[in-house]
Amino acid sequence: MAAAEEGRSGNGIMIRDLAQRDWPAVRSIFDAVVSRGDSFVYDTDMTDRAARSLWIQAPPGRTVVALDERGAILGTAKMGPNQRGPGAHVATASFMVAEDARRRGVGRRLAEDALAWASIAGFRAVQFNAVVATNEPALELWRSLRFRVIGKVPGGFRLRNGDFVDLLILHRHIS
Amino acid sequence: MAAAEEGRSGNGIMIRDLAQRDWPAVRSIFDAVVSRGDSFVYDTDMTDRAARSLWIQAPPGRTVVALDERGAILGTAKMGPNQRGPGAHVATASFMVAEDARRRGVGRRLAEDALAWASIAGFRAVQFNAVVATNEPALELWRSLRFRVIGKVPGGFRLRNGDFVDLLILHRHIS
Repeated sequence: MAAAEEGRSGNGIMIRDLAQRDWPAVRSIFDAVVSRGDSFVYDTDMTDRAARSLWIQAPPGRTVVALDERGAILGTAKMGPNQRGPGAHVATASFMVAEDARRRGVGRRLAEDALAWASIAGFRAVQFNAVVATNEPALELWRSLRFRVIGKVPGGFRLRNGDFVDLLILHRHIS
Repeated sequence: MAAAEEGRSGNGIMIRDLAQRDWPAVRSIFDAVVSRGDSFVYDTDMTDRAARSLWIQAPPGRTVVALDERGAILGTAKMGPNQRGPGAHVATASFMVAEDARRRGVGRRLAEDALAWASIAGFRAVQFNAVVATNEPALELWRSLRFRVIGKVPGGFRLRNGDFVDLLILHRHIS
């Protein structure tokens, strides 16, 4: 886990569990990302209760924030089992980065942390269920982290202009 | 929808929305199916609250029962959007048939009803997220209803003997 541990503090970015006081900043990132309408299969204009319920994961799941050196929240991730029961050995995770914090490696730090968490928690793999096929920055990151496409939902995502694009299902074994 | 409408009453099997009084019989089928450990990514020994919350779908979803001519419950299905927001045009559904009602076309009746519902409700497709690759009767049914495999989660399902088998993702467009 050396690389992942380094990832938690490297690049001036720190990852820690979400605290109650982080929620307003996380909600602001959440709303901005969801309202872009290009990456998440979430409703816009969610109530605070619905947004909390969706994003804040209780154990065995976990929600984290990425902070800069001054403590400003740059991004957030949630993770947990992708299925229950006989499917609970595969994890899933979701990631959001603040608009003004992009291209600084925040997503990569969050992803490395999630992979480290999945390994420590004993998951055998990580699966993303709905990666929008036009979300190239995300796909580039997942490919570089050895995720591979294991499925494609034709026209599974409706863009704001009304066009439909595929949703990709990505997967990576945890060693 | 002629074929589907016929399906609702043909073969002596009737489909209708779940009523409160159906729950004990549905819970009994639910527990028996989940405890087999060969088809559902659900936990066994769920509380009644958890089982209800998982199986009873509020609008825009729907939960139904299949009844024989004497009103005995033979099976049940739940259906609803597979994702939210920009993914909400794809439906999903789950099906359970009582052990002693198998090989009587109950699953097919429930599936035809779900496809009719998805069409009427305006969904563009139906997706199953986790079909166990060794569940041949289910796969045969889905293939006969023009579902196709759009993804495969390697080792996504843990059998009771400890072996891992693939989970298949199935999809069908709604015309």
